[in-house]
Amino acid sequence: MKTIFVSGTAGSGKSLLSSKLHEYYTKNGAFAAVLNLDPGVENLAYTCDVDVRDYVDYVSIMQQYDLGPNGAMVMANDLIASKIDEIQNDVNKVNPDYLIVDTPGQIELFAYRSSGRFIIENLTSEEKTSIFLFDGVLINTPVNFVSIALLATSIRLRLNLPTINVLTKSDLIGDKLKDILQWSTNLKTLENAIAKETDGDTYALTTNILRGLNLGGFAQGLIPISNVTGDGFVNLEGAMSRILNLGEEVED
Amino acid sequence: MKTIFVSGTAGSGKSLLSSKLHEYYTKNGAFAAVLNLDPGVENLAYTCDVDVRDYVDYVSIMQQYDLGPNGAMVMANDLIASKIDEIQNDVNKVNPDYLIVDTPGQIELFAYRSSGRFIIENLTSEEKTSIFLFDGVLINTPVNFVSIALLATSIRLRLNLPTINVLTKSDLIGDKLKDILQWSTNLKTLENAIAKETDGDTYALTTNILRGLNLGGFAQGLIPISNVTGDGFVNLEGAMSRILNLGEEVED
Ligand SMILES: Nc1nc2c(ncn2[C@@H]2O[C@H](COP(=O)(O)OP(=O)(O)OP(=O)(O)O)[C@@H](O)[C@H]2O)c(=O)[nH]1
Ligand SMILES: Nc1nc2c(ncn2[C@@H]2O[C@H](COP(=O)(O)OP(=O)(O)OP(=O)(O)O)[C@@H](O)[C@H]2O)c(=O)[nH]1
Ligand SMILES: [Mg+2]
Ligand SMILES: [Mg+2]
Repeated sequence: MKTIFVSGTAGSGKSLLSSKLHEYYTKNGAFAAVLNLDPGVENLAYTCDVDVRDYVDYVSIMQQYDLGPNGAMVMANDLIASKIDEIQNDVNKVNPDYLIVDTPGQIELFAYRSSGRFIIENLTSEEKTSIFLFDGVLINTPVNFVSIALLATSIRLRLNLPTINVLTKSDLIGDKLKDILQWSTNLKTLENAIAKETDGDTYALTTNILRGLNLGGFAQGLIPISNVTGDGFVNLEGAMSRILNLGEEVED
Repeated sequence: MKTIFVSGTAGSGKSLLSSKLHEYYTKNGAFAAVLNLDPGVENLAYTCDVDVRDYVDYVSIMQQYDLGPNGAMVMANDLIASKIDEIQNDVNKVNPDYLIVDTPGQIELFAYRSSGRFIIENLTSEEKTSIFLFDGVLINTPVNFVSIALLATSIRLRLNLPTINVLTKSDLIGDKLKDILQWSTNLKTLENAIAKETDGDTYALTTNILRGLNLGGFAQGLIPISNVTGDGFVNLEGAMSRILNLGEEVED
């Protein structure tokens, strides 16, 4: 079994991508399954094979501990880690070639508290990779791009997995896509764009950070996809294959 | 009026610090007020002078739009921006010397979507500063420290305000406090600590990023405080004064 963790900011398209990846693998003859780790999601775009909501119930947590929505969300996310045996057991019963993991809506609760890292370390799997989603609609300026790139790097350090950076909603952003892709591959272009947009202090901070990110191998570029039109899925699958199968393509 | 935005990860102590700052200023003879911007909070440790919950009701949003807890939280946070006139009006009526703004529990919803930046830009105030809270309990390894420092930098870029980095819960972490403060001021110590903890790839990524952060002036150090014992408040107030009053101390 190979495991793909799908993470990203709230509303970036994690759940829809999980369902589309499932479809993509299935169509190509692989046995894929989806694990939902979001205790707070109401309606899912897919039928999930393993569901944390079977073990962590957000509404009962609110009532039982007399918590408001914030506190209940924090507690529900923290409780995920304690359900590792049940989840592992359910996953073993399904035993797919590819396990796609849809992570909780609020990434900070999953990534910065202990549950995310615990689940990632302790779920038994041959290979593990992470896909981090940049919400195309949120990246409308170069400084916002750097800000989300920093967030992605921060989460990559926390989760400690080989990571593919993906830009979602490519269908919604028109010409902006070309700019964003240039920012993500060409440091000089990005620095120039930032210089135009910002004052001296922010420019100095941003460009110094960027050089660090760049040296650290961040800017292998961003794979643009649309979960709606299916654009970019072939590239994404290729990138995942290189990590998960050490070069083999998905069997078909 | 001078405005202090208190942000940080979920549960890091934003609300408790807001109430303690209010107490601190009041005790020193300044007129301070608190604005709650968290639509999802149930119980507050303070009586707030202006409250976004008067205008954005999380529970009605869930019911009216038939949303689950994640979706309702995203929508509630997005709606904050549309209430700027009402909030401004209420703030004007109170008209304090210091307005302390308690931001929403999930920082990603406030910082990475548009509402946070919109409110910060559009709230009328003489001077504005941001306090970013590092949850002392979450920073238990050097890589976690770097990860949260990256998050703090990312949010600083998004919010575009002069920022003071604060470590909360200093009362709970014992000897670890000394380590963390060394990491935050001495790059070489931090790099050595990371080398001990990580493999080659993570080490290379982390140290390159760090040099960027350091050059960018991140590491002016972290002010440790305890919201419970009051330790560190004098230092924090000093740092705020330097930004807000250009050197004057709070009047007392
Ligand atoms: N046009 C377009 N819409 C998308 C795309 N991906 C996701 N969406 C839409 O964006 C919204 C959020 O998608 P989700 O898949 O629920 O995102 P998520 O990251 O799982 O959201 P949370 O779990 O609540 O954080 C939905 O309305 C999706 O239909 C895309 O590539 N293109
Ligand atoms: N010991 C100790 N506990 C603290 C400190 N600051 C906050 N807490 C506790 O940590 C918990 C969370 O504090 P809050 O002030 O609600 O944190 P918050 O950042 O507003 O939380 P959300 O708005 O839900 O994200 C509470 O139980 C506080 O009493 C501190 O400095 N020391
Ligand atoms: Mg989702
Ligand atoms: Mg709070």
